[in-house]
Amino acid sequence: MTQEHPVTILTEEECWARLRAEEFGRMAYHLADEVHITPVNFAVDDRRRLVFRTAEGSKLLGVVMNADVAFEVDDVDEENERAWSILARGKAQILEGAEARDADNLRLRPWIATPKHNVVAIEVTELSGREFVLARPWEHYLPQN
Amino acid sequence: MTQEHPVTILTEEECWARLRAEEFGRMAYHLADEVHITPVNFAVDDRRRLVFRTAEGSKLLGVVMNADVAFEVDDVDEENERAWSILARGKAQILEGAEARDADNLRLRPWIATPKHNVVAIEVTELSGREFVLARPWEHYLPQN
Repeated sequence: MTQEHPVTILTEEECWARLRAEEFGRMAYHLADEVHITPVNFAVDDRRRLVFRTAEGSKLLGVVMNADVAFEVDDVDEENERAWSILARGKAQILEGAEARDADNLRLRPWIATPKHNVVAIEVTELSGREFVLARPWEHYLPQN
Repeated sequence: MTQEHPVTILTEEECWARLRAEEFGRMAYHLADEVHITPVNFAVDDRRRLVFRTAEGSKLLGVVMNADVAFEVDDVDEENERAWSILARGKAQILEGAEARDADNLRLRPWIATPKHNVVAIEVTELSGREFVLARPWEHYLPQN
């Protein structure tokens, strides 16, 4: 990456490798006419789906009523002035039976330790990732401490 | 916070304090019939709006066509096994004239150092925040390294 090309496009394989290494993301979804966003603890299963658990509630309700979702995972590395972001679009479905039980083998850590019996899988239809060099324009005109 | 109450609800003032201290969030928005999500470098202005810059493109187009957006900011503190997330809902608008110029005084660092002439402000209508104790259920059944 040079000063003139501060953005690197990640390959699909690089995107999957980073998704597998992370466990927190954010899902955007429709609920009635509203757009919602929620943090999600997820894992990638052996069919390259983004899988998460959820209790009964708006998050689950949203993906049942409208399966189209968007998912985002990112990391900001302040020290090295780098950041990357991966965006996925896909269809969410509730897993049943053996597929749902297979989720027990995934490393899923919920943000809240309450029972979450429903397993949702997002079948990814679009995937893109970018890595950035962080720009700090204000350093030119803000006083330094 | 005790083992039985692993979630703390943040007050509105606590939410604003954390929003002011952060500079990266993610915005979810409608674009045609699709839900989209994008990472955003933002700042809080003196009218308690979430302000960001954007070049011409889908991000801007989305909020012009449908002003209802959702915004998320979070932080995961692995060391202390804590995480928090703030969710905001609001109406996005493009700022013009003096209001747009005022954005020059905000600490806005775009993820890509390309010209971004449009200034968008999200008027927050709903705000909530939660802090979690991270649960690690798999530690009970996964081998420890």
